[in-house]
Amino acid sequence: MLNFMLYNPVKVYFGAGEVKQLNKECAEYKRILLVYGGGSIKHNGVYDQVLAQLTGKEVFEFSGIEPNPEYETLLKAVKVVKEQNIDIILAVGGGSVIDGVKFIAAAACYHNDDYYEILQTRGAKITKAIPFGVVQTLPATGSEMNSGSVISRAELSSKSAFGSEHTFPVFAVLDPEYTYSLPKRQLINGVIDPFIHVTEQFLTTNLNTPIQDGFSITVLKTLISVADQLINKESKDYVLRSNWMWAATNALNGYIGVGINHDWATHNIGHSLTANYGLDHAQSLAIIAPRLWEHQLENKLDKLAMFATQVWGCDPNMDRRGLAYLAIEKTEKFFRSVGAKTRLSEYDIKVDPSQVANTVFAYPLGEHANITRDDAIRIITLSI
Amino acid sequence: MLNFMLYNPVKVYFGAGEVKQLNKECAEYKRILLVYGGGSIKHNGVYDQVLAQLTGKEVFEFSGIEPNPEYETLLKAVKVVKEQNIDIILAVGGGSVIDGVKFIAAAACYHNDDYYEILQTRGAKITKAIPFGVVQTLPATGSEMNSGSVISRAELSSKSAFGSEHTFPVFAVLDPEYTYSLPKRQLINGVIDPFIHVTEQFLTTNLNTPIQDGFSITVLKTLISVADQLINKESKDYVLRSNWMWAATNALNGYIGVGINHDWATHNIGHSLTANYGLDHAQSLAIIAPRLWEHQLENKLDKLAMFATQVWGCDPNMDRRGLAYLAIEKTEKFFRSVGAKTRLSEYDIKVDPSQVANTVFAYPLGEHANITRDDAIRIITLSI
Repeated sequence: MLNFMLYNPVKVYFGAGEVKQLNKECAEYKRILLVYGGGSIKHNGVYDQVLAQLTGKEVFEFSGIEPNPEYETLLKAVKVVKEQNIDIILAVGGGSVIDGVKFIAAAACYHNDDYYEILQTRGAKITKAIPFGVVQTLPATGSEMNSGSVISRAELSSKSAFGSEHTFPVFAVLDPEYTYSLPKRQLINGVIDPFIHVTEQFLTTNLNTPIQDGFSITVLKTLISVADQLINKESKDYVLRSNWMWAATNALNGYIGVGINHDWATHNIGHSLTANYGLDHAQSLAIIAPRLWEHQLENKLDKLAMFATQVWGCDPNMDRRGLAYLAIEKTEKFFRSVGAKTRLSEYDIKVDPSQVANTVFAYPLGEHANITRDDAIRIITLSI
Repeated sequence: MLNFMLYNPVKVYFGAGEVKQLNKECAEYKRILLVYGGGSIKHNGVYDQVLAQLTGKEVFEFSGIEPNPEYETLLKAVKVVKEQNIDIILAVGGGSVIDGVKFIAAAACYHNDDYYEILQTRGAKITKAIPFGVVQTLPATGSEMNSGSVISRAELSSKSAFGSEHTFPVFAVLDPEYTYSLPKRQLINGVIDPFIHVTEQFLTTNLNTPIQDGFSITVLKTLISVADQLINKESKDYVLRSNWMWAATNALNGYIGVGINHDWATHNIGHSLTANYGLDHAQSLAIIAPRLWEHQLENKLDKLAMFATQVWGCDPNMDRRGLAYLAIEKTEKFFRSVGAKTRLSEYDIKVDPSQVANTVFAYPLGEHANITRDDAIRIITLSI
């Protein structure tokens, strides 16, 4: 096991009706900025339930955070926070809103006005942020219980990640009933995204870490076990939605990934696909991951074999290479069974692998830092 | 899944040499109280390594915290904290030292001088505590990464648990190499104690919670996988010690037990056995748990069967009752294989079940609140 530091101070309130905790959690604050996306929370009742907990407060609103939150939009919110002396921000939405609020909260306290520096330095210079809480409506990114964020900047075709120990939510309300109104596309993304969060950590070097491996396998098996009912039947079973929601949070709250190598190459290439062609984040992951695993098969052999036997139930007597290919095949089949496309050619876009590779944040990629720009072009080409 | 709140702000530094983090973590403090037990840290080098990180600080010491930390002893430490205006306490040791420091830290800030009220109210009235950090030398209790504590009071033959969101360690240093000098008795306790921490949470009502169940199963399997090498061979393999240490922490840091019912009846009866006859905490658990599971077999049928198939590899085609008995049999056999006794009569004590039952904290016990004083007497009698 590698040495590690683990720190996650987010207070999670999980379950139906837990929005009631907002009242207590916001007690010490007076000027609240409610940040949300396209307005779906006004149709599904979440907006009203949140406001009902904030009586007596000065509540300001900033709506219109896009999927893949856009730098230029967030700058406008930073201005509101500063002008209105906001003392807490509430992110009501999914990963894009939460990621956006992390940037807004940090930028509003930044030591200069060059907020793009936050992204260029991956958050290293953040020393403070406005406190913020989360009311989650879409399980997927794990952003509700971590300090990471990914921000897009359209004019540069870039998508950049940052994080800081100052950008953890103070609290997060996770109510599985809030997921009942999600459209199928979001349900698919909500299974694929956490699935790949796990594999970016689990499918790396085998360092004999049974706690981390077992936790990862548990999250993967849980996602697989709920996916058909959740996506194909759009089941509103509360237990099913709860297990999905809690699996998605555990995929990226830090616990499964301590003391091991991390990959994140699929995410890096995927971010660039999204920035260039507008694919949903999870759509890009479902396409890149299987081809990247094939490309890195020898490096990931142990864990791909473990993936095959312990997640997909394959015969442990098979040879490891056979198991590795079988794991990839079964995963791709699983993705397709829940409506996720696994080839770029299935979308109405014309992909230029060199262009995608050029806007990847930085090379080399992967847990072995061995994926070059040429490798990325090869992986993208294989993904067409 | 039941509604839950999860909050764990402990900053964990894990790995060889991580004692170096003390310097940074104590930077803002000036007057430090080092609290430890019988002095083994002076023989194994930990004491010197800790002090080396605290140069330039005013360091005070309080040693002699007993196994099962004693109320009267802790009062003396509270006096030191107040008289010397201590601004951070460092607990260097195992669960007893850490539990003791939690009490000291809370009592030193308590609103009145009736510190026993902290135990009588289970910590409900704690509003503040002196900040404290941990350097762990004995993996077992999980106290290094939670807010709970168990304190003994000899004159009342009592052992009482308390906890508060103010009694989380600020940080905890977990260095697997610090466990190399532990005697075999502590190695045994260090496997049994976390094992039962898991079963107190996992072997309860089946609420269809695959994340929690999978995490619990992972911790149990990891403990089983390391036990023979660790205890019978006293292996000093770093990877083995790391997996043991991290398993023990995860057994009781809150994550595996969210949204499910908890039992803790084995602990309650075990505490009373320790208070009356001086058995080690883990020794009491290894004796009570198997008999309590038999007594509660019908209520725990689902989970005992899951325990049998997923931890012990039993044939899932067997009937659930047969599986449940098999799980208990295999667990008891495992305990004995690593030197843990499972009958009271194996110790040189004469047990009075009524006396033990009388000093249990409060009835009814168990996740169904169905274990009465008479049931406890029955379980203790069966354990002889």
